[in-house]
Amino acid sequence: MSQETLFTRIINGQIPGKFVHRDEDIVAIRDINPQAPTHVLVIPVKPLPSLAEAGPEDEALLGRLLLTAKRVAEQEGLAEGGYRLVINVGGQGGQTVPHLHVHLLGGRQMTWPPG
Amino acid sequence: MSQETLFTRIINGQIPGKFVHRDEDIVAIRDINPQAPTHVLVIPVKPLPSLAEAGPEDEALLGRLLLTAKRVAEQEGLAEGGYRLVINVGGQGGQTVPHLHVHLLGGRQMTWPPG
Repeated sequence: MSQETLFTRIINGQIPGKFVHRDEDIVAIRDINPQAPTHVLVIPVKPLPSLAEAGPEDEALLGRLLLTAKRVAEQEGLAEGGYRLVINVGGQGGQTVPHLHVHLLGGRQMTWPPG
Repeated sequence: MSQETLFTRIINGQIPGKFVHRDEDIVAIRDINPQAPTHVLVIPVKPLPSLAEAGPEDEALLGRLLLTAKRVAEQEGLAEGGYRLVINVGGQGGQTVPHLHVHLLGGRQMTWPPG
């Protein structure tokens, strides 16, 4: 079975995406249905279906995913005001694309509970 | 200035906490104001004020933080249904304790937007 996901197709240029970061291992694109003034998805190029499928061999990649989200937040001018990162895993988590991604939301006051 | 936070005091046993995981670098405790049937905080022992203060030297620790959250989710019986991880950074992110922590929420359908 193909591991091709919506995000893999965007990364490969088959579907357009608004990139705000791109390196060998991680990309960041704007969410097409933003829930805050800034809403970016930070995505590993490696098509892990979700965090549930990540293993110890992915430790460095997962760390870099969070550090990249932090850097994109700075780039988006959110360092001072603050921001929220969200990772949805599976159905009850609200995950809709089976390719691990971190939501970065900011530019408004985030509320509690987080959905 | 002391780097002692509420979480440091719980980790040191000065304040009681309900631990669901504990190793040298990372602990997990139940949130005292749960927003879902399972609501656990996964916390590095190192008192980073927030993700904004994490640097490249913290890459492995951040990766392990996510892998530990995943393992606690499995331990809590959330692997099949799914779950959500949330990291709040600064005021607009809704961060209330200045010590980096990951919220793990599950056991109910999480909604969108995430707060």
